[in-house]
Amino acid sequence: MMFASFADIADFATHAPSFDALAAEAARSRQNSLTKPQGSLGRLEELAIFTAGWRGTARPTITRAQALVFAGNHGVCEHGVSPYPPEVTVQMVANFEAGGAAINQLCRAAGADLSVIALDLDHPTADFTSGPAMSEAETLDAINRGAAAVDVGADVLVLGEMGIGNSTIAAALAAALFGGAPADWVGPGTGSDASGMARKADVIAKGLARHADAKGMALMAALGGREQAAICGAVLAARSARMPVILDGFICTAAAAVLHGVAPSLLDHCLIGHASAEPGHRKLIAALGKVPVLEFDMRLGEGSGAALALGILRAALECHNGMATFGEAGVREA
Amino acid sequence: MMFASFADIADFATHAPSFDALAAEAARSRQNSLTKPQGSLGRLEELAIFTAGWRGTARPTITRAQALVFAGNHGVCEHGVSPYPPEVTVQMVANFEAGGAAINQLCRAAGADLSVIALDLDHPTADFTSGPAMSEAETLDAINRGAAAVDVGADVLVLGEMGIGNSTIAAALAAALFGGAPADWVGPGTGSDASGMARKADVIAKGLARHADAKGMALMAALGGREQAAICGAVLAARSARMPVILDGFICTAAAAVLHGVAPSLLDHCLIGHASAEPGHRKLIAALGKVPVLEFDMRLGEGSGAALALGILRAALECHNGMATFGEAGVREA
Repeated sequence: MMFASFADIADFATHAPSFDALAAEAARSRQNSLTKPQGSLGRLEELAIFTAGWRGTARPTITRAQALVFAGNHGVCEHGVSPYPPEVTVQMVANFEAGGAAINQLCRAAGADLSVIALDLDHPTADFTSGPAMSEAETLDAINRGAAAVDVGADVLVLGEMGIGNSTIAAALAAALFGGAPADWVGPGTGSDASGMARKADVIAKGLARHADAKGMALMAALGGREQAAICGAVLAARSARMPVILDGFICTAAAAVLHGVAPSLLDHCLIGHASAEPGHRKLIAALGKVPVLEFDMRLGEGSGAALALGILRAALECHNGMATFGEAGVREA
Repeated sequence: MMFASFADIADFATHAPSFDALAAEAARSRQNSLTKPQGSLGRLEELAIFTAGWRGTARPTITRAQALVFAGNHGVCEHGVSPYPPEVTVQMVANFEAGGAAINQLCRAAGADLSVIALDLDHPTADFTSGPAMSEAETLDAINRGAAAVDVGADVLVLGEMGIGNSTIAAALAAALFGGAPADWVGPGTGSDASGMARKADVIAKGLARHADAKGMALMAALGGREQAAICGAVLAARSARMPVILDGFICTAAAAVLHGVAPSLLDHCLIGHASAEPGHRKLIAALGKVPVLEFDMRLGEGSGAALALGILRAALECHNGMATFGEAGVREA
């Protein structure tokens, strides 16, 4: 899947695969026949039915789960929006590749194949307070790299990101998409104090003023970053393959939210793996009309909350496929 | 471990193994050295530190996880407190043994060895509206059977239950322990309607009036059941072996809460795996001063929410033990 222009993405929205209501209904019927009071597995039942609808089969399974972590660097770091220097993005990518980060452990625990895609880390995006962060060509390149990274033979996709400064990018995108003051969307990120957060809000206000007219995918070029664009590409490629996506925290969700700005239905196949402790995330989740799978006060990024949620999705499908029906088990129904 | 009298349990509370604050502190130091912003794994960090304190080691692991589901039948079913007949307890035990229930799938998914202990299903406890549900000897026998079922070589214990009518038992125990009207603790259980819930509340009111003086473990004899007593025994045996316990929903938690009535510290090594949709559960969790691991609107029992939480605990320990420190990874700290 290749996008040659932003218009291609809006066009994809008009003919993207949609939820298979018949498969979902068949999954619901199966849930109602299993040896438990109807509805008693709560959200596990919903997750199984959701997956059935997107995979287009009453009994979906996860044979292969893919996790993709995209990494990028950001011109706005020049303004001191993070207590960490951009070199930490490179260092953390090396840590991912060596297997030492949280996401490595969480992917192993959840049975996901992890790939880390470093996007031109030695060429940060431009400072969005003085111009667009990326050209349209740069943005499309990152989108297409994200799309190309998706293994369409997998059954579910976990998405995450790494990029020093990118909680500022996320807050800028969220404010541009859903309104409100920059301070409403700014949080500590990896550890900004009050003055750091004030700097973030100030930088965002300047970016919003400069790019007030940016809409749709042009918003990604104006205020986004390579890992954000790649997340959008991966979300689109997964949709094309009818793969459910598990988004991670504030930064990952804000990246995908740019697609919601193009067409809200583009995120219909996406779950929010967890509600992050980053304060803007709950507000963003609500704006997208989603309910997070987990709430664990995590705020690490990397796809960590999404990978943890994958374990829950697996458990939901184990119940869906492995449980006996009342008839099979000879258990009397009420 | 054998208890010859209820006084033995109160005595155990005075010399039970306690939380190893030094091991927990060492675990916290390790968490703070790992390649992530401090605290960014949220509750996963807390779970690792909790486990370290109870296991008495800075880097606890789960080599073996045990799940125990205790099943019993209840005299109060004569009053129509459940839409299901008591035979369903036997049928569901057969379903557990055949591998067809939710708990089988969830234990497989979480890597727990499941044992199901059916406790005299053909001899229901007595109807607590006309006398104590069990004699002291019957209660101690069930406690000791629960304790004996614990594999002290395991690293963590998941507890669950099955017993038609036992949401009435749970509400009765909760009301006796923490006060309030029976209706405050009654919910639909496996599917009671409004008139069914009114019957439950009425039966509980009669039980509370008859056994107003019952305290400590005598409350278990008065209003409890065999699977409730066995849960208490298992909680005590796990404590003796310094094994963290993951309790399940309303019924499992109410059973263990009887130990809290003996001495609140007896539940210090217990996590609440999930907040059930059964309305009394959140109130009970708050009364015990606990915070549930998951909230998924589940209301099945069997240990299902506790088994799901085991997967989270495993992920927490994978991060704790598998992540690189800043020094090991060459990642710069802020």
